[in-house]
Amino acid sequence: MTRLNETHDSSLTSWVASANGETDFPIQNLPFASFRRAGSDETFRGGVAIGDQIVDLAALHNSAPFDGLAGEALAAAAEPRLNRFMGMGQAAWSALRLALSRALRSGSEQQASLQGCLIAQTDAEYGLPCSIGDYTDFYTSVFHATSVGALFRPDNPLLPNYKWVPIGYHGRASSIGVSGQKFPRPQGQTKAPDATEPSFGPCKRLDYELEIGIFIGAGNELGEPVSIDRAEDHVFGICLFNDWSARDIQAWEYQPLGPFLSKNFASTISPWIVTMEALAPYRTAFAHPAEDPQPLPYLSSESNSREGALDIQLECLLQTEQMRNNGEAPTRLSESSFKHSYWTVGQMVAHHTVNGCNLQPGDLLGSGTQSGPEHEEAGSLLELTVGGKQAISLPNGETRTFLEDGDAVVMRGYCAKPGAARIGFGEVVGTILPARV
Amino acid sequence: MTRLNETHDSSLTSWVASANGETDFPIQNLPFASFRRAGSDETFRGGVAIGDQIVDLAALHNSAPFDGLAGEALAAAAEPRLNRFMGMGQAAWSALRLALSRALRSGSEQQASLQGCLIAQTDAEYGLPCSIGDYTDFYTSVFHATSVGALFRPDNPLLPNYKWVPIGYHGRASSIGVSGQKFPRPQGQTKAPDATEPSFGPCKRLDYELEIGIFIGAGNELGEPVSIDRAEDHVFGICLFNDWSARDIQAWEYQPLGPFLSKNFASTISPWIVTMEALAPYRTAFAHPAEDPQPLPYLSSESNSREGALDIQLECLLQTEQMRNNGEAPTRLSESSFKHSYWTVGQMVAHHTVNGCNLQPGDLLGSGTQSGPEHEEAGSLLELTVGGKQAISLPNGETRTFLEDGDAVVMRGYCAKPGAARIGFGEVVGTILPARV
Repeated sequence: MTRLNETHDSSLTSWVASANGETDFPIQNLPFASFRRAGSDETFRGGVAIGDQIVDLAALHNSAPFDGLAGEALAAAAEPRLNRFMGMGQAAWSALRLALSRALRSGSEQQASLQGCLIAQTDAEYGLPCSIGDYTDFYTSVFHATSVGALFRPDNPLLPNYKWVPIGYHGRASSIGVSGQKFPRPQGQTKAPDATEPSFGPCKRLDYELEIGIFIGAGNELGEPVSIDRAEDHVFGICLFNDWSARDIQAWEYQPLGPFLSKNFASTISPWIVTMEALAPYRTAFAHPAEDPQPLPYLSSESNSREGALDIQLECLLQTEQMRNNGEAPTRLSESSFKHSYWTVGQMVAHHTVNGCNLQPGDLLGSGTQSGPEHEEAGSLLELTVGGKQAISLPNGETRTFLEDGDAVVMRGYCAKPGAARIGFGEVVGTILPARV
Repeated sequence: MTRLNETHDSSLTSWVASANGETDFPIQNLPFASFRRAGSDETFRGGVAIGDQIVDLAALHNSAPFDGLAGEALAAAAEPRLNRFMGMGQAAWSALRLALSRALRSGSEQQASLQGCLIAQTDAEYGLPCSIGDYTDFYTSVFHATSVGALFRPDNPLLPNYKWVPIGYHGRASSIGVSGQKFPRPQGQTKAPDATEPSFGPCKRLDYELEIGIFIGAGNELGEPVSIDRAEDHVFGICLFNDWSARDIQAWEYQPLGPFLSKNFASTISPWIVTMEALAPYRTAFAHPAEDPQPLPYLSSESNSREGALDIQLECLLQTEQMRNNGEAPTRLSESSFKHSYWTVGQMVAHHTVNGCNLQPGDLLGSGTQSGPEHEEAGSLLELTVGGKQAISLPNGETRTFLEDGDAVVMRGYCAKPGAARIGFGEVVGTILPARV
């Protein structure tokens, strides 16, 4: 795992003034996205966030390229999608991060040449940061698995495999969109418990899922597992991820092969990928409770126990159409942290590949809904409303059991602690349109 | 659906002599693949099978291009992957088919210019015909679902949703390989029914699944369902598909979210994609048994009932290492037909998109294991050996419950009937290597 280095020094400041105050994107962060000027037909290209600005990596590559490995990495990261850069591996990612950190620091001699490569984030629109070949969703919150399991299988909430197997399943890559995604309420088959036959129509139990997304960097060859100790060498970074879910469609379709149409109508990621290197100060110890089974050897390592977890604070907010029309800000529904995850990022990668499955640069792993131990920390409406039985009251007097047309769901994430710079993820927003008639 | 036209005329012959005898690839077939000379470092390009030869579409495009839409289609089909051609839609596919049919017919004036574009299939190696963005596996054989369900859930073999919902789930695209694929026996967690804890090691119940693969041609936009009547406009063609399965890993991991590591270590397709147009003579009527639920309106249409099914004969063969060393041919394990499928290709596409999920050119849909109504028609060893309890005897005296190291599984498929040309699929072969130590 990445060691702390000069780029993490919390005393560093940038000549980009907005990076030095309250921001998700101080000089210690330097996350990557694919962007262009909003409303333009420019080619998308890689960018790095600094304060409220974006370093246009294509402009930088053309006007003031870096030398050596940092320069090779910059050339790859300047492309419309980050896949080639992601596939270059840790040494290249670190070289570019260090070069950017030095160039953006207060007093840097490169300030003049970088100044012309800045674009305000408010002037930008984002694309998918990379081509996502395969998307896998895990199920790593034992609190989510238990409370959702109790709703789908009251007699059998947490299945016997859960504490042994990092449960995951394949999702749909084509319908993943970037923050700002709007999509119609899905239609499909549902069957009420007391009905004799299913019926067809718009989903009545539309939900979000508060997740993080994990981007694979360097891949592995088919047939060659990645060991737990090398697992994070293959991980580029992390984004926020909303894995929208149609609960009524899910309940009827999911046996025996798992969720399908209840999940694949849309999934939304935040535009910025925060690198694993930027998150290094926020690693924490990881252990299963002593009374639980301990991970099998292929899921176990000393470094995974010492610092396998990440304390990423997550929050989920809702802005209804009425709130938006009245100029009211989104209201918070819940807060949680990825540190509650029952499995680490390294364990997900080691498990995914232990059978020889090949991962490729740009592949996305969802963490599964990150519900915390308390009811208020639930990462979905299904849990917050106890299966739709207890409506939530919003500040403006509206109530919700599940999402309604016009609702926008906002997720935010950040890492913060004394003595380290705040590392923010920005936000991911998605909006429900009425069902297609 | 595609109407019969001059390209289907069973009396047509080709100036390529091998296309006129016993062959999977007469002039009425004209399937597509991506190929290059075996052992070379040539660029892959599109090719069309004719008898024992391949028309090199890149050479044809360079030396004697077609006019009009057929020429545009040829240019796209000459690329290393067929995705752009597949995305052009039915009119382009038909135009190229017609032009190739006329050029390859006995007496064609184009014989001289095409002669130089032929490469013997024995001199070729194949790549994936297209970049597969997403792979979905369906579960359309009610016979397979019932017999496998009885093994995994003796008390509850066929779940209540089966006859209403074309059950499907997402698979792994990265590990799909083309015929000739060899891969190590997967390792993973398994738990014997009487064990208190899982153990880790090589799969002991490795199996094949006899499927067809359905390639999407033109895609649909996110949020825009494809109606059953238009569904086949989006389907380019069909290949053979072996969806390898690790049954012991599957049994322990698959609840509640479905199969994952038990399936994603490898899947193998045949190199040739037979177009839906070539299959037009083999359409048959389709109906659910009268005592079963009739499909909901979004899965129902007059043309789907009249000719939604396809009578594709399938067979599965095994060649053990010992047989190979002794020069013995593969031995047949079972025969079946896609006509037994409980859901049609059109229903799969309509169901997949009804929630707004977007399909893209090159996406692959697996049919699910195509077991027929009789025990001998089972499309997997799990079924043929009744969960590994009844070993199969091979002609050379060996026995099998599940696959052993060195085993090669061969699948073949064809359509044949009086008055129509045979439309063959060639074969798909895959071989098990020992587990990685």
